[in-house]
Amino acid sequence: MVTRLSHFFLRTLREDPADAEVTSHKLLVRAGYIRRTAPGIFTWLPLGLKVKARVEAVVREEMANAGAYEVHFPALVPADPYRESGRWEAYGDGIFRLQDRKGADYLLAPTHEELFTLLVKDLYSSYKDLPLAIYQIQDKYRDEARPRAGLLRGREFTMKDAYTFDYTDAGLDASYQAQRDAYERIFRRLGLEYVIVNADNGLMGGARSEEFLHPTPVGEDTFVRSAGGYAANVEAFTTVAPEPIPFEGLPEPVIFDSPDTPTIETLVAHSNAHLAAPAPGIAGPATDAAAEWTAAHTLKNVVLALTHLDGTRELVVVGIPGDREVDEKRVEVAFAPAAVEAATPEDFERHPLLVKGYMGPWSPQGAILGEESATGIRFLLDPRVVDGTSWVTGANIDQKHVHSLVAGRDFTADGYVEVANVRAGDPAPDGSGPVELARGMEIGHVFQLGRFFAETLGLKVLDENGKLVTVTMGSYGIGVTRILAIIAELSNDARGLIWPESVAPFDVHVVATGKDAVAFDLAASLADDLENAGLDVLYDDRPKASPGVKFGDAELIGVPRIVIVGRGAADGRVELWDRRTGDREVVAAAEAVARLTRHH
Amino acid sequence: MVTRLSHFFLRTLREDPADAEVTSHKLLVRAGYIRRTAPGIFTWLPLGLKVKARVEAVVREEMANAGAYEVHFPALVPADPYRESGRWEAYGDGIFRLQDRKGADYLLAPTHEELFTLLVKDLYSSYKDLPLAIYQIQDKYRDEARPRAGLLRGREFTMKDAYTFDYTDAGLDASYQAQRDAYERIFRRLGLEYVIVNADNGLMGGARSEEFLHPTPVGEDTFVRSAGGYAANVEAFTTVAPEPIPFEGLPEPVIFDSPDTPTIETLVAHSNAHLAAPAPGIAGPATDAAAEWTAAHTLKNVVLALTHLDGTRELVVVGIPGDREVDEKRVEVAFAPAAVEAATPEDFERHPLLVKGYMGPWSPQGAILGEESATGIRFLLDPRVVDGTSWVTGANIDQKHVHSLVAGRDFTADGYVEVANVRAGDPAPDGSGPVELARGMEIGHVFQLGRFFAETLGLKVLDENGKLVTVTMGSYGIGVTRILAIIAELSNDARGLIWPESVAPFDVHVVATGKDAVAFDLAASLADDLENAGLDVLYDDRPKASPGVKFGDAELIGVPRIVIVGRGAADGRVELWDRRTGDREVVAAAEAVARLTRHH
Repeated sequence: MVTRLSHFFLRTLREDPADAEVTSHKLLVRAGYIRRTAPGIFTWLPLGLKVKARVEAVVREEMANAGAYEVHFPALVPADPYRESGRWEAYGDGIFRLQDRKGADYLLAPTHEELFTLLVKDLYSSYKDLPLAIYQIQDKYRDEARPRAGLLRGREFTMKDAYTFDYTDAGLDASYQAQRDAYERIFRRLGLEYVIVNADNGLMGGARSEEFLHPTPVGEDTFVRSAGGYAANVEAFTTVAPEPIPFEGLPEPVIFDSPDTPTIETLVAHSNAHLAAPAPGIAGPATDAAAEWTAAHTLKNVVLALTHLDGTRELVVVGIPGDREVDEKRVEVAFAPAAVEAATPEDFERHPLLVKGYMGPWSPQGAILGEESATGIRFLLDPRVVDGTSWVTGANIDQKHVHSLVAGRDFTADGYVEVANVRAGDPAPDGSGPVELARGMEIGHVFQLGRFFAETLGLKVLDENGKLVTVTMGSYGIGVTRILAIIAELSNDARGLIWPESVAPFDVHVVATGKDAVAFDLAASLADDLENAGLDVLYDDRPKASPGVKFGDAELIGVPRIVIVGRGAADGRVELWDRRTGDREVVAAAEAVARLTRHH
Repeated sequence: MVTRLSHFFLRTLREDPADAEVTSHKLLVRAGYIRRTAPGIFTWLPLGLKVKARVEAVVREEMANAGAYEVHFPALVPADPYRESGRWEAYGDGIFRLQDRKGADYLLAPTHEELFTLLVKDLYSSYKDLPLAIYQIQDKYRDEARPRAGLLRGREFTMKDAYTFDYTDAGLDASYQAQRDAYERIFRRLGLEYVIVNADNGLMGGARSEEFLHPTPVGEDTFVRSAGGYAANVEAFTTVAPEPIPFEGLPEPVIFDSPDTPTIETLVAHSNAHLAAPAPGIAGPATDAAAEWTAAHTLKNVVLALTHLDGTRELVVVGIPGDREVDEKRVEVAFAPAAVEAATPEDFERHPLLVKGYMGPWSPQGAILGEESATGIRFLLDPRVVDGTSWVTGANIDQKHVHSLVAGRDFTADGYVEVANVRAGDPAPDGSGPVELARGMEIGHVFQLGRFFAETLGLKVLDENGKLVTVTMGSYGIGVTRILAIIAELSNDARGLIWPESVAPFDVHVVATGKDAVAFDLAASLADDLENAGLDVLYDDRPKASPGVKFGDAELIGVPRIVIVGRGAADGRVELWDRRTGDREVVAAAEAVARLTRHH
């Protein structure tokens, strides 16, 4: 049935919505795809629902091709399974919680790992039942502190989440690969360029974790890549540590006065003004002499306060080269699931041995940082601070620093930590050369969940030998509404949206112009012919709208193929308009039908 | 792609689930369509999801045929619009409420009238935009006190809810009829017999309201119908009042001793033992003499306690013929939105003039019931208690009743009320003869909402004369998951489900039996041929399951057309099995494909 614009539930808007910051949000509202209902919560209008259904259809087909079966979990779920996994507490303010009339705790699920696990436990019991891949396309909920960017970061959103179940690691690898392949097919069909980046920070035991990012300068995520093929998100990037340096011949530490130098910048300026230029072995990771002191010669000690899941607060000091910053995302991953913030004045008050601005791991009286030190505060080092490197750092005496302080000889740490920011030119950990930084938007995530949920919730099967083994799982997510917004973000020009054919709300937009009944008759019969040929047709049959209004709406709505039926109608001629290129071509009506259906 | 049972996510169960009371619940769980997640909350397994999708497809097609466009509202909605309509309070414990991290109130919407109204207000402003019909298929929530009967009364359920918008009453009538017609098409396509019953109790101003009921002895709803074509639910049934009787010549009231007769039954027995047989005009609605006293001669006064929306408690007395009971559903509708319960002993203590067991509207000292009476308690009468009817009722003196008490002469009321139960044989209000009572299950509801929400939320449009007029709305609901359960409830036998073809999870179920590779090869190619012909095929390719297990599963799952490929496979013969009739027929494989696809 042809959709006639004269009756269709659609109202395009001239003005951008006041609260919209990003292009996709502006255009999807202006072109009548969505409306805001509450912060981060949207109503889907007919146009938006059609695009969403097409994205979902692509996802469903490729899930079926990957051998995954569709299920559907409730959005309203009981708290208990999430208590068992620890996530009821871990989510903090990030989820919506509620109670039913009997006082039982429920949540609006942000993800369903627990319920997938329990469902399989409920029904399956043997290795013969595996491998299994199941998925759902479902509305999920997160109580975002700052919902923003329209559909890109909402509080109610649609996800495709798939899980695989295997009883061997090799099985998981195969299941993982099948899902990864399906993701590649999905993004190709949706016309979404992607980079697969390593998202495995190595801390979880080396299970695979990869993100699909769409590379774009306006992306919210930073990732690193090398010309040699390495790609990772910044959280997963691992630093190449230099070789240790023998201690022999290295100068002994020297305390020096450094008044008013509480920052790296003032310390470097002071050193250049008052110290001799750095000789080999007296400062920094390089053993060569340098013309002048730089931030790279200094060891910056940053005090962080961790809040653990049980509510306890712990101070940790990280020592990183002074020319680097602590990266917010890397620090978050490094200390997860603890929450991290900068130490407060109160924290410093409780530790009078820490001399703010002049802090360091060493003092003439002995170690100041580290679990075995005078403060007892855990001390972790950047991997570049290998044994034998010499540093300028605080002497733990007000207005004094020390130089020629050698790692491994004069101070030690409780371990290493990956929290320093990654810079263009840093070597890729796989030896594929220096990395560059790029920006992207996350469009999918595949990762090997392993046995955590199965172990916690007791999902075991009998193996070939009749032995109970814990199942190993993979987790595979695509944000359906997020993807839709990203496609909109990438598919537009100054005049409106330009959908890829795979997800356009209609296959063809037929526009009748003028006042001549011949044009409207021809347009109606052309629309019918296209619809009968299996295309989904939007027909702008509004009798009183001007051609300018109709063309403007067509451009805003963004169906990629437009047919204008107007002046040439009496001669049976119509105009094919390619929304993307702007090309227009006059052809016979029959030829238009033939071309559009052949294409389809 | 053929679905192979060896890989499909399905596990049939031998035992009924412990908590299942109704057949649909038992079979849908046992056959692997759904699993319980929490009380009244279910997970949909692949089989269930396929049936649900087919029901939804039928609904979508007929909504499109009725000119309705699909939208989708969030499930998590802000409280404010519901506060404006008064429903935030009115729902009481019946909805799920929650707060976000900022403390803002939200609910999980049980219905979306407010948001539909606001959306149209947001986008439309002129009569030219109307009529409009929009609908959604959406997961809704109700915090049922006693979720039960599986999907029939759940807490999370899928509804199709449509709304129409018009600016004239005639427009609303036309929109209503279009939706009503669509409902008839939907239920016919789903193979669901239906009766359309009047659900309009006349109190809302005569706007139309009709329920679609599936008539079945196990239905939870009672409705009435006459041979002449009248049909209504019991709440909407209206009593035919007899003609008033002239007072002239009617005997005067007579108080008589009636010890230990606090019930109608004891009063009737006492009267027959101690009074003369009723003469004309001294008792009951009939003016003729009767052989003996019956409950129909008595006036029963029932004290009800209403709790109004503002929390105030009001006593009301209803006077009905003693041979009838107060009907719980009729009383609920009659006094809505107030909540109704029986008066408590405390209520009686506060009104010492009410003599329990011997209560009546009259006393020798004057009126006892009614707003203008000694008690001030509102007094409402059954419509049968017309002026001139004479009654036996309490004399408001302990152990005493009165007879020959004439309505309109000896007592009056504050109004009439429809709370007495309906009985087979009662006359239909449209004069189409006596009614019978029948049972049914509600499968749909269409009604004219009128201007309440539009008025409350300010939805007005400019009419042809440039005048702002309030929009009038219709509301049309179908419980998708409820319908699915009802179909399952009606479509089964002792061995399992038997789906109608329109909603079966698969078109054909191919079963390969035996150990012979020839059978499996033929079954696989037959399944491919059917799938290539456009059918959705489930192929039981399990190599080790016995024929008994496979047939049992096929019967339990309930795909209506089954093909068995076994012993005859070497000769290219297969068996067509009609799940509904049980008929089996051996045919050539090619013939089987031809028949099944022709049918399709």
